[in-house]
Amino acid sequence: MGENILGAIDETIHAKVRLGIMSLLTVHGECDFVFLRNELQLTEGNLGNHIRVLEEAGYIEVTKTFVGKRPKTSCKSTDLGTGMFQQYLEGLEKIIRMAQSGKPEL
Amino acid sequence: MGENILGAIDETIHAKVRLGIMSLLTVHGECDFVFLRNELQLTEGNLGNHIRVLEEAGYIEVTKTFVGKRPKTSCKSTDLGTGMFQQYLEGLEKIIRMAQSGKPEL
Repeated sequence: MGENILGAIDETIHAKVRLGIMSLLTVHGECDFVFLRNELQLTEGNLGNHIRVLEEAGYIEVTKTFVGKRPKTSCKSTDLGTGMFQQYLEGLEKIIRMAQSGKPEL
Repeated sequence: MGENILGAIDETIHAKVRLGIMSLLTVHGECDFVFLRNELQLTEGNLGNHIRVLEEAGYIEVTKTFVGKRPKTSCKSTDLGTGMFQQYLEGLEKIIRMAQSGKPEL
């Protein structure tokens, strides 16, 4: 199963918060930090850590700008991130189908 | 989103290895330790830790017996575990549908 099923579960995406970030970026396109923090109900530090993991993996692009004097941080999925998230979702779907059908073969 | 979507993601099940254990128990029914270890390609210690988490949550039942002189450890999902896993899978399905349709409303 290691390779067959869990192999498709990319740990970079699988962590609950990062799954939330990738889902929101997929649905909403570019999102700002405050929006993500509110939607995911996280502290700034916690969200910042998970964003850094996704950025370092090359899955998201982070842009810092100023709106007047206020800093604004925006995130969007890269092509790599979009592809990896799609693959992750397909892996999950297989697990769900397997578990719900009760059959080990896919 | 915290409550709406990620709220359905039970961390007791979500960890990759525990997701694997619950999937295997759902598909195969009662499984012995050696089978789980081989399927998931884990060390004894690592698998043992994750089994303990699931057992302490009341999601699985662990039985230790002897086959001749060899100890044999078997695991099976409890009614609680089966229900929680089903709920977890439904939560994941919602996230997948949302991400693939690109619509935040479910």
